[in-house]
Amino acid sequence: MSNTSPVTQFCVTLDDIQRAEELIRTYVIRTPLVDAWGLQPLAGCRLRFKCENLQHGYAFKARGACNAVFSLSDEEASRGVVTHSSGNHAAALARAAVLRGIAAHIVMPKNSARVKLQAVRALGIDPILCEPDSASRESTAVRVQQETGATLIHPFNNRRVIAGQGTAALEILEQAPDVDTIVVPVGGGGLLSGVLIAVKTLRPDIRVIAAEPALADDAFRSLKSGKIEPALRTDTIADGLRTPLGTLTFPVIQKLVDEILCADEQVIINATRLLAERVKLIAEPSGAVPLAVMLQHAPQFAGRNVVALISGGNMDTNG
Amino acid sequence: MSNTSPVTQFCVTLDDIQRAEELIRTYVIRTPLVDAWGLQPLAGCRLRFKCENLQHGYAFKARGACNAVFSLSDEEASRGVVTHSSGNHAAALARAAVLRGIAAHIVMPKNSARVKLQAVRALGIDPILCEPDSASRESTAVRVQQETGATLIHPFNNRRVIAGQGTAALEILEQAPDVDTIVVPVGGGGLLSGVLIAVKTLRPDIRVIAAEPALADDAFRSLKSGKIEPALRTDTIADGLRTPLGTLTFPVIQKLVDEILCADEQVIINATRLLAERVKLIAEPSGAVPLAVMLQHAPQFAGRNVVALISGGNMDTNG
Repeated sequence: MSNTSPVTQFCVTLDDIQRAEELIRTYVIRTPLVDAWGLQPLAGCRLRFKCENLQHGYAFKARGACNAVFSLSDEEASRGVVTHSSGNHAAALARAAVLRGIAAHIVMPKNSARVKLQAVRALGIDPILCEPDSASRESTAVRVQQETGATLIHPFNNRRVIAGQGTAALEILEQAPDVDTIVVPVGGGGLLSGVLIAVKTLRPDIRVIAAEPALADDAFRSLKSGKIEPALRTDTIADGLRTPLGTLTFPVIQKLVDEILCADEQVIINATRLLAERVKLIAEPSGAVPLAVMLQHAPQFAGRNVVALISGGNMDTNG
Repeated sequence: MSNTSPVTQFCVTLDDIQRAEELIRTYVIRTPLVDAWGLQPLAGCRLRFKCENLQHGYAFKARGACNAVFSLSDEEASRGVVTHSSGNHAAALARAAVLRGIAAHIVMPKNSARVKLQAVRALGIDPILCEPDSASRESTAVRVQQETGATLIHPFNNRRVIAGQGTAALEILEQAPDVDTIVVPVGGGGLLSGVLIAVKTLRPDIRVIAAEPALADDAFRSLKSGKIEPALRTDTIADGLRTPLGTLTFPVIQKLVDEILCADEQVIINATRLLAERVKLIAEPSGAVPLAVMLQHAPQFAGRNVVALISGGNMDTNG
């Protein structure tokens, strides 16, 4: 594509994503594409899942975190990394830091799901607990950053994180060259913008649909209003997708996404159950939102050849 | 290998398995190998799962059934197929028959799990119900066979079924050339004998371990006594593995298997739960028996590079 392509004007390029793929190759799993034959009668289309729920940490977050950590200079790396996250990014960044042998300071709200706190502790890192509001999260992270000189790795509004998440799209294009529609969940938009840059540069013929819970439809509203809209409520069961878009991710999404579709809570719950019953895969509700969107807007997918990305395997069990 | 190899003396050869792979290619899924990184601390070895729970019908049975049905001459095929099975072979044979456009007569005990009856009915085939004992199953099948001229496709004691199941091993060897230990479940022994013939011909350096529930340890006892031992009880939760060995499968297993290891009920239940919690995969208890055996006999697998085959995704839910 020429330099005037709309795809080349953003914070991340295809080249960044391809270099990320090279850099993180040995630290992440090339997750399988699973044929969802058991859902075909319901979905009305060919459907395969890109199984990021089988990724390290059960989420695509391993990609961006590894790219961010392994892109640091030795000098930067020696001062460690810091982030604030209630979700899968926390454990992903902790793991990447352990792999590189550097310090990770993980700020988490003290009401985080037990399983997510445990995932960080299992890596030998004690989370720094803060109040469960974004002001406390950010001020705590800034304080740690000032005290240690650690590099802040934002969960999605970070060029290297976006480039890392985009590597999932490179794998999809290799594993399913015949795909015509890709569906990915959108929270802060790190995955979506990385996927968009990769796909719309290499294969602009492929539709990329973003999937969002109707109760956290800030990306849908942002696209309509032309500016980043805040989340209005935070009670969707898809707790990984409650975040508003970032200043780096919104322009990419605004320019390149084909459509953002929303799913209702009951459909998300149903999709999570169908994944277990008919595909034999476990994903957390956030990860089932792409399937939920396909079920709720089935006519838009009829007869298509779809790859939907599922992610997030956290279950807060008593086991 | 020379013709005097111990592997060449059985009812099925590597060549049969390779031809089966060619024949069934478009009808079965080349199932993924999933990295069980989340189980590594528990298992003490590198562990990947060959995910036959993601196969058509959620079980490896699709392989043998398709090979048996598509190996029939047009004349044989025109008279249909018949089998008796309470398990995944029933639905697999029904599906293969539908794919070839021929009749399938499926004899099932009237107390079969609702989900297994439904799996056959969903293919448009009404199971022929019989009493829940092997005499009734066999006499009903024979009667149907005599009335229709259909070919009996036994669930495991059938050359083409064994060759079909062996194709799973060809895929494992391609997907994991570095594997040194393969663990497969054993019921009637169709899968195990097919895998043994493929692996021990191509890669005799690889250990093949069979996994059996301790409450249905007939294969373990058969290996000890040197003759096919009956099942003594039929109450293991791993209901797919209650069957005794067959006259075709026993000689292969007797000659080629490295070891048969048994797992207790509680370990099987625990393994089924661990698959869901730490690998995000659902398999029925029969399919989790290989993992159960690895947990119960961990020292035998320490430091190894293992591929364990999991299969069977039936859950008798009320959903």
